[in-house]
Amino acid sequence: MHFLSGPVGVEGAEPGDLLVVDLLDIGAKPDSLWGFNGFFSKKNGGGFLTEHFPSAQKSIWDFHGMFTSSRHVPGVNFAGLIHPGLIGCLPDRAMLETWNQREVDFIATDPARVPPLANPPFAGTAHMGKLTGEAKAKVAAEGARTVPPREHGGNCDIKDLSRGSKVFFPVYVKGAGLSVGDLHFSQGDGEITFCGAIEMAGWVHMRVSLIKGGMAKYGIKNPIFKPSPITPSYKDYLIFEGISVDEQGQQHYLDVHVAYRQACLNAIEYLKKFGYSGAQAYSILGTAPVQGHISGVVDIPNACATLWLPTEIFDFDINPTSAGPVKFISGTTDLPIAYDLT
Amino acid sequence: MHFLSGPVGVEGAEPGDLLVVDLLDIGAKPDSLWGFNGFFSKKNGGGFLTEHFPSAQKSIWDFHGMFTSSRHVPGVNFAGLIHPGLIGCLPDRAMLETWNQREVDFIATDPARVPPLANPPFAGTAHMGKLTGEAKAKVAAEGARTVPPREHGGNCDIKDLSRGSKVFFPVYVKGAGLSVGDLHFSQGDGEITFCGAIEMAGWVHMRVSLIKGGMAKYGIKNPIFKPSPITPSYKDYLIFEGISVDEQGQQHYLDVHVAYRQACLNAIEYLKKFGYSGAQAYSILGTAPVQGHISGVVDIPNACATLWLPTEIFDFDINPTSAGPVKFISGTTDLPIAYDLT
Amino acid sequence: MHFLSGPVGVEGAEPGDLLVVDLLDIGAKPDSLWGFNGFFSKKNGGGFLTEHFPSAQKSIWDFHGMFTSSRHVPGVNFAGLIHPGLIGCLPDRAMLETWNQREVDFIATDPARVPPLANPPFAGTAHMGKLTGEAKAKVAAEGARTVPPREHGGNCDIKDLSRGSKVFFPVYVKGAGLSVGDLHFSQGDGEITFCGAIEMAGWVHMRVSLIKGGMAKYGIKNPIFKPSPITPSYKDYLIFEGISVDEQGQQHYLDVHVAYRQACLNAIEYLKKFGYSGAQAYSILGTAPVQGHISGVVDIPNACATLWLPTEIFDFDINPTSAGPVKFISGTTDLPIAYDLT
Amino acid sequence: MHFLSGPVGVEGAEPGDLLVVDLLDIGAKPDSLWGFNGFFSKKNGGGFLTEHFPSAQKSIWDFHGMFTSSRHVPGVNFAGLIHPGLIGCLPDRAMLETWNQREVDFIATDPARVPPLANPPFAGTAHMGKLTGEAKAKVAAEGARTVPPREHGGNCDIKDLSRGSKVFFPVYVKGAGLSVGDLHFSQGDGEITFCGAIEMAGWVHMRVSLIKGGMAKYGIKNPIFKPSPITPSYKDYLIFEGISVDEQGQQHYLDVHVAYRQACLNAIEYLKKFGYSGAQAYSILGTAPVQGHISGVVDIPNACATLWLPTEIFDFDINPTSAGPVKFISGTTDLPIAYDLT
Repeated sequence: MHFLSGPVGVEGAEPGDLLVVDLLDIGAKPDSLWGFNGFFSKKNGGGFLTEHFPSAQKSIWDFHGMFTSSRHVPGVNFAGLIHPGLIGCLPDRAMLETWNQREVDFIATDPARVPPLANPPFAGTAHMGKLTGEAKAKVAAEGARTVPPREHGGNCDIKDLSRGSKVFFPVYVKGAGLSVGDLHFSQGDGEITFCGAIEMAGWVHMRVSLIKGGMAKYGIKNPIFKPSPITPSYKDYLIFEGISVDEQGQQHYLDVHVAYRQACLNAIEYLKKFGYSGAQAYSILGTAPVQGHISGVVDIPNACATLWLPTEIFDFDINPTSAGPVKFISGTTDLPIAYDLT
Repeated sequence: MHFLSGPVGVEGAEPGDLLVVDLLDIGAKPDSLWGFNGFFSKKNGGGFLTEHFPSAQKSIWDFHGMFTSSRHVPGVNFAGLIHPGLIGCLPDRAMLETWNQREVDFIATDPARVPPLANPPFAGTAHMGKLTGEAKAKVAAEGARTVPPREHGGNCDIKDLSRGSKVFFPVYVKGAGLSVGDLHFSQGDGEITFCGAIEMAGWVHMRVSLIKGGMAKYGIKNPIFKPSPITPSYKDYLIFEGISVDEQGQQHYLDVHVAYRQACLNAIEYLKKFGYSGAQAYSILGTAPVQGHISGVVDIPNACATLWLPTEIFDFDINPTSAGPVKFISGTTDLPIAYDLT
Repeated sequence: MHFLSGPVGVEGAEPGDLLVVDLLDIGAKPDSLWGFNGFFSKKNGGGFLTEHFPSAQKSIWDFHGMFTSSRHVPGVNFAGLIHPGLIGCLPDRAMLETWNQREVDFIATDPARVPPLANPPFAGTAHMGKLTGEAKAKVAAEGARTVPPREHGGNCDIKDLSRGSKVFFPVYVKGAGLSVGDLHFSQGDGEITFCGAIEMAGWVHMRVSLIKGGMAKYGIKNPIFKPSPITPSYKDYLIFEGISVDEQGQQHYLDVHVAYRQACLNAIEYLKKFGYSGAQAYSILGTAPVQGHISGVVDIPNACATLWLPTEIFDFDINPTSAGPVKFISGTTDLPIAYDLT
Repeated sequence: MHFLSGPVGVEGAEPGDLLVVDLLDIGAKPDSLWGFNGFFSKKNGGGFLTEHFPSAQKSIWDFHGMFTSSRHVPGVNFAGLIHPGLIGCLPDRAMLETWNQREVDFIATDPARVPPLANPPFAGTAHMGKLTGEAKAKVAAEGARTVPPREHGGNCDIKDLSRGSKVFFPVYVKGAGLSVGDLHFSQGDGEITFCGAIEMAGWVHMRVSLIKGGMAKYGIKNPIFKPSPITPSYKDYLIFEGISVDEQGQQHYLDVHVAYRQACLNAIEYLKKFGYSGAQAYSILGTAPVQGHISGVVDIPNACATLWLPTEIFDFDINPTSAGPVKFISGTTDLPIAYDLT
């Protein structure tokens, strides 16, 4: 579950406009200077590496001004790349129906799948804010779930929509209806430790303006954005390659998802040589300002993805040397596990 | 076809070592200060956006010192991020057999497919260097094609393996057998305009050293590398989002390949508003230092990929404004087309 | 006048140690989201360009999250490089006497000068915090004025001591006695618009630790520091050169102060071509993240200094073009002047 | 002595224009992949720290592709920030006379000084290229020495005029008369180890264009320039402060030259703790991409300058730690000394 604020109306906004949102600043609530990162249990939907980390595990991250560190993951300390996981304007009725239809159709291709291929509207657990009575029932039954990113933006979990960035959103309804939430103190590309990034309670300071008729003027279907000039700048990276051959040696066709998974697994193996548990290494990849690049997608049959791990976030040197790695991490702490109830 | 130099033996290299390669400098041949970028015809295998650009097209890029511009793509000018498309050490017999087996098995899952799912050894067109007679025949019949990236590196087409970077390669055979080639003056992430980047004739200046037993010490399966300190630094980007719903509105499951394709198509539509033809815009995405990020891969069912287009490479301002885009590009030139022979 | 907080005692700190201060975060007071920048009247001591701007003038800068803009200086908008103008540990008695002696000796070389060459202790206007009675009188009479930077750090006005940076201060007395204040939202190198930067009311979040005996271990006389990883990154600059020949054509010997003044005057002339008043241009140089570099100091008789003006802080393009500059700024606003009382 | 090429005529250039020079690439001569850095003997004019390093000393720097290291200064290795020390257009007669007059006047203020305050035209040693006879004699007698930077640019020794940068030069005579030379493989801000940077034999690839009447349009007196997008990016610095109190404890008035000297001396003391000789440390500051910033120039009586030393150029960690510095450098090599002939 992610908390959202909104929708907020924007005077003058009309369908076809672009809503320009300046994320002027984002911060943690002053009485809540911590966040958490966790993996879902495989039984609860799992995540990117759920075959390797099937249990629910969690780490706590304390905020020290603009920096964070964790009692469960020693040896790393980095500046927050604070951003909302979810932000976007309301869909109109046609867009909403498109979403619901294509996802229902998709589920139908493998209806017995666990977890399901997508999440249709589900009135039973819908959180409907201040709506009551019939209105609430109607919306809960039809409202798209906020799990995935869609044409309007939504739960993109793009770490680079960080404070200081400027986003251009398609407007579908009069007043735009801007919502924002699911704040993250930091996240690696992919949000691979679902759920999630370093999830936090916080506030957002935004400014909005409009480009009238901007969707047609610029041919916009999905949001576009410009990065912040105030991004933490880690420049020295150790980069891991992965190709679209999976852990079982199975070949996949130009599959970047598989290739990135291999790059992540390669990075985890590497970090274990310095004393980290697999879960700790996984947690670093999900929370630190790690980059995931689509490096090659045309050299049949292998896609090549790269994971960029900033070396400066570590208290020690993680570069390869002739002497081999030193076990800087003692292994006395690890991420607590919450075992599945049977 | 890409030209390769090597394999070169490295004294002291043994299986299990890491070969450390410093790419000290790379340059174009002084008598050949130009390169080309092209799209394959769909009939010839096509590329990333072959449904949209089914014909063979080509642009010529002239080199001006460290910069490049094209007579076929006006209005852009950027510094070369020069790199080898292909680099890596020889596989041993077991690794070679693994490659051939898994690719042959993969082809067998859809043997009638055009183009084929992968490219098995093909003696008919194999370029075998100085080999002759029986040795040549044997190697041509068994040697893996150099099209895809694999565990040893190979044709990764990673733009960030640029001059000044340092790469750590797995060593599989005594002497390592380092090969390098397929030089690119510049390329965007993904090498989406297959073939290819800005392909050029040039030279490489390398230094090698060894980390003995480094594969086991560091748990290395694929190469790892460190980026160059001398990378062209474009900092202002316009970023396009794409999700894993394809051009026909079809839903795909956390498919980053589809999502990146949408981000690319979104960027092309945007650039057309400034007067570029689709082919010119495509060519920019394939050649300029464009970044492709795996932004979200867990929010079922949509992956989210982002394409980062550096704004500073353009002679004019491509940022969205209230006034709307100006057609800076007159449309009088375009990429020449080579029509398929029938 | 600049407000200071402290001195704060640090447990375990002893003379000869290095006090390591992490500036974890700095911000404006939430009820005071604005700052000011001003020039002193020449009669009141003036500033770097007081011959050219002899009157007291002031601009107000509003804070919008992490950004600032001014009603008095249109067309610029930049991210704050927030930092304390003044920070450092208490001197011991010997250090204090060294300071007072060398400054009194210096004043004596030209005692009639207006303004004086330095500012000796002056009990009449000393702000003594909670001290009372005899103690207050004694300290007011002997305490060094906090105007200049000295061996302990002090009023260095180094814009790069920004939030996220790490500073190593010499410790002279038991408990260190760390003071901090004179907060700036942003400042150009040199703080040339004295007074001052964008002066603001705010708060500082710090963490301290010690390197025992660090002064001798590392041969430290003045503080050293490491920059923040979260610095606003403007990458595109227009750079102005200045040499040590002054505005009257007078030659000075390798004088970087004179050379930087020429670079500043050159930048002001340039900005005036876009419609700015001289005072507005001066204000930009004093407040924006402008860099001042000591480029050449050995080519007799001219020092060469360079002023780096980030182009991205402007709402319009300030680069030179064949078409010549456009007067984007209408000239309808300017910095208010406070005329000297006679 | 520095070698120059030129003056080269530019078609269409007239007095008052700006000559736009793109430094497209610069490199070492392929048969001369090395350079040198040296200190002048104090008897021969000395340099910035001649009181501390009075003897002529020299280090040899080998080029490895885009990187350099020295047999005389172990433990450092950095990418070249290649640039011309000297570049600019011909002065006209009036400008030439201004130069000669002000420098002769300046010498007259202390005619007995050794070394002299400036270097007037000196026919005895003038290198006059292809000129012969009377023309040669006349020019040798009147031509300004090329030692200092002046209004036209000249021997600015600005390390940031590096390959990839774009420079706008005032044009004083028909045809402009562009000269360039004194190539440096790398240099720290200030070129404090006079002579000089890493001096090398090489080539320059330039492109020129004109902004007609640009001097008046943009109010240009000295050259302006834009930095290269291909600058080596070292991001982690250790920064040394210096104030305008000299080594003898003498106070100077807002003197940035003195303050920078103190920052340099502080950095040298620091580096000696890791085993470097003073001369080696001095050599690093003169050759590596060290930045010198004018940090504060208004806090009477002390200027504050900072020296930014990139930490990534060292083979070992030079950051301060609780454990204190380790003597990584054995001290078995040093810079050879050439003793003064008596």
